[in-house]
Amino acid sequence: IKAELADHSIIKGFMIIKPRGYAIWENIQQNFDKQIKKIGVRNAYFPLLIPEEFFKKEAKHAAGFAPELAWVMDEEQKEKYALRPTSETIMYDSYATWIRSWRDLPLKLNQWCNVLRWEVKQTKLFLRTREFLWQEGHCVYETDEECENETRLYLEEYKNICEKLLAIPVLAGEKTEKERFAGAKRTYTLEALMPDGKALQMGTSHNLGQNFAKAFNIQFLGRDGKKYSPWQNSWGISTRLIGAVVMMHSDDKGLVLPPKVSPLHIVIVPIYTAENKEKILKKANEIKNSLKPYSILLDDRDEYKPGWKYNEWELKGVPLRMEIGPKDIAKKQVVLVRRDNNKKEFVKMSQLDKKIKNSLDDIQNSLYNRAREFLNSNIVSSTDFNDFLKKIKNKKLVKAFFCNNIKCEDLIKDKAQGATSRLILFQQPKKIGKCIYCNKQGKALVIFGKAY
Amino acid sequence: IKAELADHSIIKGFMIIKPRGYAIWENIQQNFDKQIKKIGVRNAYFPLLIPEEFFKKEAKHAAGFAPELAWVMDEEQKEKYALRPTSETIMYDSYATWIRSWRDLPLKLNQWCNVLRWEVKQTKLFLRTREFLWQEGHCVYETDEECENETRLYLEEYKNICEKLLAIPVLAGEKTEKERFAGAKRTYTLEALMPDGKALQMGTSHNLGQNFAKAFNIQFLGRDGKKYSPWQNSWGISTRLIGAVVMMHSDDKGLVLPPKVSPLHIVIVPIYTAENKEKILKKANEIKNSLKPYSILLDDRDEYKPGWKYNEWELKGVPLRMEIGPKDIAKKQVVLVRRDNNKKEFVKMSQLDKKIKNSLDDIQNSLYNRAREFLNSNIVSSTDFNDFLKKIKNKKLVKAFFCNNIKCEDLIKDKAQGATSRLILFQQPKKIGKCIYCNKQGKALVIFGKAY
Repeated sequence: IKAELADHSIIKGFMIIKPRGYAIWENIQQNFDKQIKKIGVRNAYFPLLIPEEFFKKEAKHAAGFAPELAWVMDEEQKEKYALRPTSETIMYDSYATWIRSWRDLPLKLNQWCNVLRWEVKQTKLFLRTREFLWQEGHCVYETDEECENETRLYLEEYKNICEKLLAIPVLAGEKTEKERFAGAKRTYTLEALMPDGKALQMGTSHNLGQNFAKAFNIQFLGRDGKKYSPWQNSWGISTRLIGAVVMMHSDDKGLVLPPKVSPLHIVIVPIYTAENKEKILKKANEIKNSLKPYSILLDDRDEYKPGWKYNEWELKGVPLRMEIGPKDIAKKQVVLVRRDNNKKEFVKMSQLDKKIKNSLDDIQNSLYNRAREFLNSNIVSSTDFNDFLKKIKNKKLVKAFFCNNIKCEDLIKDKAQGATSRLILFQQPKKIGKCIYCNKQGKALVIFGKAY
Repeated sequence: IKAELADHSIIKGFMIIKPRGYAIWENIQQNFDKQIKKIGVRNAYFPLLIPEEFFKKEAKHAAGFAPELAWVMDEEQKEKYALRPTSETIMYDSYATWIRSWRDLPLKLNQWCNVLRWEVKQTKLFLRTREFLWQEGHCVYETDEECENETRLYLEEYKNICEKLLAIPVLAGEKTEKERFAGAKRTYTLEALMPDGKALQMGTSHNLGQNFAKAFNIQFLGRDGKKYSPWQNSWGISTRLIGAVVMMHSDDKGLVLPPKVSPLHIVIVPIYTAENKEKILKKANEIKNSLKPYSILLDDRDEYKPGWKYNEWELKGVPLRMEIGPKDIAKKQVVLVRRDNNKKEFVKMSQLDKKIKNSLDDIQNSLYNRAREFLNSNIVSSTDFNDFLKKIKNKKLVKAFFCNNIKCEDLIKDKAQGATSRLILFQQPKKIGKCIYCNKQGKALVIFGKAY
C-alpha cells in the first residue's frame, strides 16, 4: 500500500490495482503474450456471465466452484448467471459448435480478463481477493499426446516468467488428487517459497483429458472419418504474481523490484541550490536523454529535499538511484546507489551506460540467486512423521514419500498445522519408500508445506 | 459472423469476440495506449462492482444509468452491488482519499475493462451488447481551463484513431443537453456516417466540471493554502469501433479491413500440382520470409483449392492476396490482388517490397477517401421543417439551426422518425438563424440524423 501498488476497496474483499502495480502486470502481460502468440495461441473474449446449468455439466468442476460463486438474476429471462470464476464451461459450450473436424484443431485460445471468486477466507491484497485479473488459456487437440506435451509447455513458459522476469525460483511438478483443479485429469503447478516460510502457487496448467469434451459434447470428425472426443487443457497466471514479487524481494525500507519487471529502472535525484539549479538540471536532463533504453525519472520537484526523495524511491523499489550534485559535475561523475544492497559507487560519466547495464543485470541476478539459496536451504527430507511435524513447524518445505491417498492427505493436514502437499516432483527417485504418514508403500516423492 | 470476428453468446444480449475480432481490438488498444501514455495517463484497475449507494450521490448520473444496471447480492453483507456500467462513482470515491493537495494533481488514470449495460433495445454484435470492452479515462485537474483543454485533447486522439487507423472520417462537436453524458457539464462526440445512412457515435469525452468532485467530496489544498473542488473529465472508446469498421468498408464479398488495423496484411495462395508443390512452396516461403515488416500468412493447406481460398480470404477481409504458380516463378513475378477494388497486377519479384508498401498505403487512403466522400455528400442543410423531414427520410445528415431546448428536441425526434441531434458543430457560423422546429431564435448549428 505504501509503495502505491494497490489499495483496499470499499467493497469487502476487493482491491484497487494502482498504476505502479498495474505497470508490473502490463510487463508480465507483454512478456507472456508474446510467448504464447509464438506458440500459435490467439486472444479472444468470452462473456463474464455463465448460465447456472453450465456448472452442472461437469460434476467435479461444479462441486469445486459452487461455494465461491456470485450470482446475477435476469428477471426478464428468469435465468440465474454466475460471474465467471474461470471460463471452461462458457468457452467449451461454444467450442462444441465451432469444432467440426480435425481441420479445426488444434484450437488454441486465451483471454485476459477479470474473474470473481467469492472467497470466505480472509482476503489479502494480490494473493487472495474476490476479484482478480488473469489470463486463461484453453486449447483443444486431436491427440492425448499433443495435449499432454503442450500442458507441460505452458508450465515451462510460466517458469520462464517467474524465474527470468520476476527473479523468483520455482519448483515444478504435479498436484496430488486432493489439490487438483476441479474437473482435471492432471494439474501441473509451480510453487515458490516466500520469506515467511509459506509456499505460494504461482501458476498452474491442467490436462483436462476428455472430461469436459464429453460433458459439453465437443466432437470432431477424425482423419479416418470417425467421430472422436478431443483432448483439452487450460492454464492460468494471475495478478497474484505481483504479490509474489512484493513478498519475495522486499526489505525493511520497502519494495525491491527486479529491473526486468520494474516500470522504472532509474530515478535521478539532483542536488542543487537556487544558484546552481539551472546548470544541474540541464546536466541531469542531458544524462537522462542519453540513456534511451532505460526507463528513467528525473525527480526535479522543488518542494522535497533529496533525503526525502531517497526514502520515497527506496520505498517504491526503483532498482537504481542516481545522484548528481555540483561536485559530481565538476568531477564528470555521478553517484549510483543500488536498491538491493545499498551499495554506493562513483561512476565516470563516460562509463555510465555500461555501468548501468551491468548493475541492472547484476541486481536481477542477485535477487534471483538470493531467492534460490533461500529456497534450496529450506527444502528438507523426512522419513519419520514426528520429524516431519517438527520441520513443518520450523517453516520448511518437507520432501517425503507419500501414498497419494486423499484420506491420508486430510489426516496429514489435520495433524501438521494445515500443511498440504504442494507438488509431486517431476524428478522422482527410482525407489519409492513408505508413506510418511500411513507407512504403507508410497507412490511418489512429494513436497509438503504450509501455503497461502 | 462469417468473417469470424464474433459470435452470439448463449446468454441473451452478450457476444463472444473471436480471435479475428479481438486482434482488431488489440490493434486499437496498442495505438491508443501509446498515445495516452505520452500525455501522462497511467493505467489502473478498479473493482467490477459498485455499491448501490454510490449511484445516489450524483443525481443525474444515477437517473441516467438506473434502467441499465445488473445487480449482485452479497447475502453476508446485506449489500447490493451493481456491475459497473461505467466507473466514475467507484473511482472518484478513491480519488477523494488519494487527493490531498495541488501536488497530487493532475491525476490521470485509465482502465481497459469490461462494462455491463442491461440494454432493453435489440442488441447487435459490437454495436449494442449487454457487455462490451472499453477504456475509460478519468482525470482530475487544478483548473477548469486545463480540464477543458484536455477533454478536447482526448477527443482529438480518438479522431486520429478513427481517421488514421480505422479509415473512418468523423464529425467532431458537442452534444446537446438531451444527449449529454449523465452528470457531465459538456459532452464532446465524434460521429461517423454508416453506409445505411445511420450515424454512429464513435467516442466521447466528458467535461464533468466540479459535479462529481462535489458529490464525492474530492477536495485539494490549493497553492494558496485554501481548499478547492478540482475539475474532472472522463472519456471512452469501446469495441463498438470494430462494428464501425465492419459496416463502413465491407462489400458483398465480405469484410474489407484497412491495412493499418488488419491483423493480417497479405495472404499468399500458392498454385501447385503434386509434381511442383515442393518447389512452389519453397519459393512462397522465401518470399514470405523476405517481407518481414508485414503480417503474412502462407495458406499451404492441401485440402482446399486456390479458388476456395480466394473466397475465404476475401470474406475475411485481408487487404492483399498474392498468388504464385509455376508460370509466375518462371517469369520471376507474382500476382497481387487488392481486396478493396479487386485489381489484379503482375509484379516483378524485384519490385515486390516497394509495390506492397505502396498498395497497402493506397488501400488505406482509398478506403478513407471513399468514406469521406460518402460522408460529405450526405450532409445537407435545411431551414424548413418539411424539407428537413424529407431529407431525414432520405437518410441524410441534416444541418439545421436549433434552439437547444430539450422539449423541442423531443418533438423533433417524435416527428422525424426517431432522428436525434448528433452534434453541435465545433465550427459555428457567425450568424445563427431560427430554430428548424420552433422558429424561435436558434442557439447553434446542429447536425441531426438517425442513429444506432
